[in-house]
Amino acid sequence: MSYNAILLKKRPNVTITPDVFEIVTKPMPELAEGEFLVKQTHMSLDPAMRGWMSADRDSYIPPVELGDVMRASGIGDVVASRHPDFPVGTRVMGMMGWTEYFVAKGGLSPVPTTVPQEALLSVVALPGVTAYHGLYEVLKPEAGQTLVVTGAAGSVGSMVGQLAKLEGVRVVGVAGSDEKCQWLTEMLGFDAAINYKDADFAEQLAAVTPNGIDLFFENTGGVAQQPIYQRMNAHGRIAVCGMIADYNTETPQPGPNWMNIVRKRLMIQGFTMPDHYHRFAEYGQKLAEHLMAGHLKYRAHMLHGLDSAIEGINLLFTGENQGKLIVEL
Amino acid sequence: MSYNAILLKKRPNVTITPDVFEIVTKPMPELAEGEFLVKQTHMSLDPAMRGWMSADRDSYIPPVELGDVMRASGIGDVVASRHPDFPVGTRVMGMMGWTEYFVAKGGLSPVPTTVPQEALLSVVALPGVTAYHGLYEVLKPEAGQTLVVTGAAGSVGSMVGQLAKLEGVRVVGVAGSDEKCQWLTEMLGFDAAINYKDADFAEQLAAVTPNGIDLFFENTGGVAQQPIYQRMNAHGRIAVCGMIADYNTETPQPGPNWMNIVRKRLMIQGFTMPDHYHRFAEYGQKLAEHLMAGHLKYRAHMLHGLDSAIEGINLLFTGENQGKLIVEL
Repeated sequence: MSYNAILLKKRPNVTITPDVFEIVTKPMPELAEGEFLVKQTHMSLDPAMRGWMSADRDSYIPPVELGDVMRASGIGDVVASRHPDFPVGTRVMGMMGWTEYFVAKGGLSPVPTTVPQEALLSVVALPGVTAYHGLYEVLKPEAGQTLVVTGAAGSVGSMVGQLAKLEGVRVVGVAGSDEKCQWLTEMLGFDAAINYKDADFAEQLAAVTPNGIDLFFENTGGVAQQPIYQRMNAHGRIAVCGMIADYNTETPQPGPNWMNIVRKRLMIQGFTMPDHYHRFAEYGQKLAEHLMAGHLKYRAHMLHGLDSAIEGINLLFTGENQGKLIVEL
Repeated sequence: MSYNAILLKKRPNVTITPDVFEIVTKPMPELAEGEFLVKQTHMSLDPAMRGWMSADRDSYIPPVELGDVMRASGIGDVVASRHPDFPVGTRVMGMMGWTEYFVAKGGLSPVPTTVPQEALLSVVALPGVTAYHGLYEVLKPEAGQTLVVTGAAGSVGSMVGQLAKLEGVRVVGVAGSDEKCQWLTEMLGFDAAINYKDADFAEQLAAVTPNGIDLFFENTGGVAQQPIYQRMNAHGRIAVCGMIADYNTETPQPGPNWMNIVRKRLMIQGFTMPDHYHRFAEYGQKLAEHLMAGHLKYRAHMLHGLDSAIEGINLLFTGENQGKLIVEL
């Protein structure tokens, strides 16, 4: 009896190439008292993984050590247990890594078996709590304001926009294909969506934000940043959640000049979720309620088999994924 | 009986040239019931004037209209009065403009005649309240933190550094001449001061901020911004008060890439004081107490005669002023 896992073997240079990973086969472990064995069924692939793979010690959480199993969150079922709180059949969610099986003593959260795993990973897990925190704790939306979100068709951006709509905010999404834009307006109820690759992006943005922009949820950086920043209103608020356009480049583009920060008294706040673990249960509860009420739609892009993560992770950086990227094991 | 005033005649192109102003001679006015006449004795020249002169309607206060007296704050003495609260001999401070005399119905604040006017304009007036607000309401210093302030020898920067020292903060000033740096460390008690024109500025900055930078009070923009930003610590806070290096340029330099805002969860807040008028009395009281206790030193750069403002204002943008720029009338 054995299972596969994927180790981080070396650090990526610029793009993530298959040779940075190593697939290993491990013997199925014996459980000690207090341990339980999880068969992971669904593993989440997230943009933050690019940062976890780099050796930058200044980052918000330590990088994955070379030779360790690559880090990931996922969902699985307990298949053997010597822990009274996690009997066989319990479904759990948490950080298990790029692996088919995982031995735990705790640190994973039970989740209901009545909700599809991809819904939990798409809405209630990291993307959802990230969207929830950034919207309510950083941007603090008020009805009637205009919000622009980049990476709008992504797992975080799509939740930001849908939550903001529930608050009476005008929501404009920025995404990288016409198909994604169509999904945002037709399926998720965004007021407008613009493809940042369009040559007249800035003109389109002006047309759909006639009263300027009060709130900017930034997931991507890249070419959309400057035109959005220029249209910020006085006392505008900007939540900087990610810069996915810059994760895989050697020479990140410069940011906008700071003069508008003074003139318009802008507030710009970067945030990452490990700072806010203590709020996850509260946010997750709210998100689950919205999910059950049908307020939050999601789209999962499923890959199949552990090995598919190796090539699949790059879909996040090319923007080719159609929704939350999940590996079904 | 007549007096001189200076009007804004046209908007400056890039630099402020003398032909944007017009000196006019006005007849001494008759006072109506409820009015009083102030002979202005000291007029403040401030970097914000560059913004007030431009036609940019998006700015935080409306520009000076063409043909109007140029805006400025100053101090003067009531020399004639038909207002019961402002008898002759009252000393007042407030917005009077580039003028030798000013007729008011109110809107000016009485100030003590026992404190030198240049101390009031340097410490208690706009520079002081700006420093106070930015430090306490935006940066929120804690003892043991490291603060870097640009434009450190300026009227705002020098107050920021001195107030921060009172809170047990390590204070590093950035200024544009060795003489200014010497003044900061030897006279004001800054822990270190660096000339941003030095080729090895970034190395010097690293040497005097061995634990990184927690708080950044930005007055200038320009070449110092990027190296300071790069040394910000996690959860660092940045107050953006001015960008004086960019006020007189046609092509403002780009800002830093936003990746560090995410990685380090930085908070960047722009502010301008017209938003906070209601706090001025409170801040002024605290600053006056510090001034009287000898906690706050200042340096006034005096010009003489109303006309001297026309050439003198450019000293602020070349950095040639030595302390708070004041026109004695």
